[in-house]
Amino acid sequence: MTYSLLQLAKIVGGEIIGDGACVITHVSPIQNADSGSISFVGTAKYQKYLSGTQASAVIVTRELAAGLSVPALVVKNPRAAHARVTALLHPAFIPEPGIHASAIIAQSAVIAKTATIAANVVIEEHAVVGENAWIEPGCVIGRQVTIGAGVHLYANVTIYYGCSIGDNTIIHSSSVIGADGFGFEFDQGAWVKIPQIGAVRIGNNVEIGACSTVDRGALYDTVIGDGVKLDNHVQIAHNVQVGAHTIMSNGVGVAGSTKIGKNCIIGGMAGIRDNIEITDNVMITAMALVSKSLAKPGSYSSNTPIDDTQTWRKNSARFRQLDEMARRISQLEKKLKE
Amino acid sequence: MTYSLLQLAKIVGGEIIGDGACVITHVSPIQNADSGSISFVGTAKYQKYLSGTQASAVIVTRELAAGLSVPALVVKNPRAAHARVTALLHPAFIPEPGIHASAIIAQSAVIAKTATIAANVVIEEHAVVGENAWIEPGCVIGRQVTIGAGVHLYANVTIYYGCSIGDNTIIHSSSVIGADGFGFEFDQGAWVKIPQIGAVRIGNNVEIGACSTVDRGALYDTVIGDGVKLDNHVQIAHNVQVGAHTIMSNGVGVAGSTKIGKNCIIGGMAGIRDNIEITDNVMITAMALVSKSLAKPGSYSSNTPIDDTQTWRKNSARFRQLDEMARRISQLEKKLKE
Amino acid sequence: MTYSLLQLAKIVGGEIIGDGACVITHVSPIQNADSGSISFVGTAKYQKYLSGTQASAVIVTRELAAGLSVPALVVKNPRAAHARVTALLHPAFIPEPGIHASAIIAQSAVIAKTATIAANVVIEEHAVVGENAWIEPGCVIGRQVTIGAGVHLYANVTIYYGCSIGDNTIIHSSSVIGADGFGFEFDQGAWVKIPQIGAVRIGNNVEIGACSTVDRGALYDTVIGDGVKLDNHVQIAHNVQVGAHTIMSNGVGVAGSTKIGKNCIIGGMAGIRDNIEITDNVMITAMALVSKSLAKPGSYSSNTPIDDTQTWRKNSARFRQLDEMARRISQLEKKLKE
Repeated sequence: MTYSLLQLAKIVGGEIIGDGACVITHVSPIQNADSGSISFVGTAKYQKYLSGTQASAVIVTRELAAGLSVPALVVKNPRAAHARVTALLHPAFIPEPGIHASAIIAQSAVIAKTATIAANVVIEEHAVVGENAWIEPGCVIGRQVTIGAGVHLYANVTIYYGCSIGDNTIIHSSSVIGADGFGFEFDQGAWVKIPQIGAVRIGNNVEIGACSTVDRGALYDTVIGDGVKLDNHVQIAHNVQVGAHTIMSNGVGVAGSTKIGKNCIIGGMAGIRDNIEITDNVMITAMALVSKSLAKPGSYSSNTPIDDTQTWRKNSARFRQLDEMARRISQLEKKLKE
Repeated sequence: MTYSLLQLAKIVGGEIIGDGACVITHVSPIQNADSGSISFVGTAKYQKYLSGTQASAVIVTRELAAGLSVPALVVKNPRAAHARVTALLHPAFIPEPGIHASAIIAQSAVIAKTATIAANVVIEEHAVVGENAWIEPGCVIGRQVTIGAGVHLYANVTIYYGCSIGDNTIIHSSSVIGADGFGFEFDQGAWVKIPQIGAVRIGNNVEIGACSTVDRGALYDTVIGDGVKLDNHVQIAHNVQVGAHTIMSNGVGVAGSTKIGKNCIIGGMAGIRDNIEITDNVMITAMALVSKSLAKPGSYSSNTPIDDTQTWRKNSARFRQLDEMARRISQLEKKLKE
Repeated sequence: MTYSLLQLAKIVGGEIIGDGACVITHVSPIQNADSGSISFVGTAKYQKYLSGTQASAVIVTRELAAGLSVPALVVKNPRAAHARVTALLHPAFIPEPGIHASAIIAQSAVIAKTATIAANVVIEEHAVVGENAWIEPGCVIGRQVTIGAGVHLYANVTIYYGCSIGDNTIIHSSSVIGADGFGFEFDQGAWVKIPQIGAVRIGNNVEIGACSTVDRGALYDTVIGDGVKLDNHVQIAHNVQVGAHTIMSNGVGVAGSTKIGKNCIIGGMAGIRDNIEITDNVMITAMALVSKSLAKPGSYSSNTPIDDTQTWRKNSARFRQLDEMARRISQLEKKLKE
């Protein structure tokens, strides 16, 4: 794919400085740019790489646009513009529509004509697959599942019966949507299984990483809002609601019936307990344990800082004395007053 | 499915207050109950929803049974009774027995006549599948695996060679039973693989969530006791033994050769180190790290509380001074005594 | 398989004490050894089991070789030698080479004659599979993937397009190589996807556990060095580089663009943040959060010690007062000086 800078600007927006006719064939990182490529610099930290760059053009903010040696596209958000340019210059593979001969599709299932159903896919009774959806090999789509238009399921994804996936949603390999929520009641010496009769409803433009799980609800559905992005190894338990455009990094676990607001950013391997409510615009740092509702937007953390193991051991042992230490301080203050 | 309250009582037990002939068609949560449904209240916390409920009947304890406006089933454990009622009113899908034409089954494998083997299942040499087992699409069952009666493997589960799964055990999608334990020895500049010649033995009435792993043993088998319930993303390492009716929430990791007792409750994303022993009836709270054996029943925790990031940073930085702080307190006490 | 001790010594090295003709049929743990077996003792901790052992022979260090009642193989690293002996006495299953009739292989794919392609495997256009590779059922190998010689992919592994797997590398079930890195930029109220146009390059002699993920790079490739061993549920984010012979236990998460040195040992469920650099020979203890670069070899930790929940609650609450406590100590010191 080849574009002139002018053509790119017309599609992704922004103002050109310099020669709009310059030809762009690929993207590259600014630290390591070569001829024919377009790079971006969004922050002052990387500004030093602009002078002497071998890139054929750069994408920058107004603030970084002075004194450039190469043509530039000036935008508000260079990283977003570069993402859009990358999609143009390095277009995603588009599969042939149609159903592979080896796919096993129930007679009552409805598959859009423009959908691609790859080898060894299994689609069960009354499932619906929308226009331009791409279901890669080994996926299993259960009874009465609805797959929206433009959905892309990578290989070996499993969608349990009755769940629905919104338009243009992407789910990566080995992920599982709609497995039973973890509901048991201890009675007479053993755990009684609580049937999970809800389902999972996933919105539009969601992306779910590899080896992630969204469990079906117990009585209600589990709901993932539009534009939510979940990384790999994420767990969303039964009855959870995740608000639109919330993003969760690798390994986050959200326990049952918790409600998370919109536009939250949850750091990697953070844990969020059950039956709490997190408001909009909350940020949780990596590996924090959210043990209570958070009603105020802002950033929250728990955990202790990394240290060399020897020093850490000494300090960590004192953690067990914290309450006693606090009492001794109060004692000292009292004595000193006397 | 439709039952009278009397019919339900006959099956799940309990005493009826009011009209036993009232007709029940489904279950609902007490906060949001509608006509035809049966809800439960097990604790005083939800008692307020009983007055004016639209449910056609409720399941309650003796203590909560006074002054009800609708018929009631009085039981010791309403949540357990409601679970059983849910299974009656919303019965699980029962597949047609038989082997799908696309399944690939070794000649030496023995499949019970009442078992259901779905599309694209692969069953290898000398494997055995019991009566009424249901193996969903894409599952791979290795050589000499034994699958008990009534087992349900959801789609895309992998069982490695030589492992055994007890009766009525459920395993959710993408889970892997019997992968090699993580055993290596560093020698002459590289890691030598320690062959994992044990297997995995999983008991009866176990449930294992999606994307979970139980590794095969090095020299012994890894053993999961009867009635154990493991949530999603759980890791059970080689040679681990998990006692009957122990339950582990999402993301728990148990390291090699550790022995866990019966009736333990392990909170989400807790980590349990290798080669330790945890006695019966231990509870571990979420994200705790169990770094030593626990010989006494009870509840255990580690970790620090969530706080706003700014405050947390100040306190967290002090963690590195804890030992010094403790010494300074002792110093002060000494000086003050003088 | 049956070997004399002498035959074993010839293959794995070491010096024989006692009768080299003694016949060995299997391995066993020293605590529980039986006739015909060979056990090992590598440390003083297990020395007590040597006297009166029922093993037919033992593998020990020079230091532990005095006064043995059975023939011995004396080596520098008994555990490594025992691993090699185990591989001889309990040889891994070797499949028949060839392509199963149900496998679906693109015409442009190149499969070595000695490779084994099992049932229901899907191999896409221009993929290459090397000599003696073993691809188990349900694996999906994407377009232009290169699989080295002697590679073993267990069932239901997914390799995305364009990735390469080095010789003799092992990947366990449900693992996913090459899913999109987690790259998004928030712009105009939603997350813009940053196309991930790099791939994953995995070295030789790597082992990756079950349900693990290695994401493809954004602009560069993600790179896993030779001899790296990753346990189950591990996450390697986009653009990460992992140095040769580094080992990571269950559930470790490495965030984007981080560079990890050679011969590191990362404990279970540790988290490593993005865009940092960890030098060679670093050890991270379980569940630690590495929040900054580590330029010095050695062992590092974070987290707090396990305690009974009641005591922990008291101490944990004080964590929120740590900064204040430190100030009060300083205050006291000042006052006492005055």
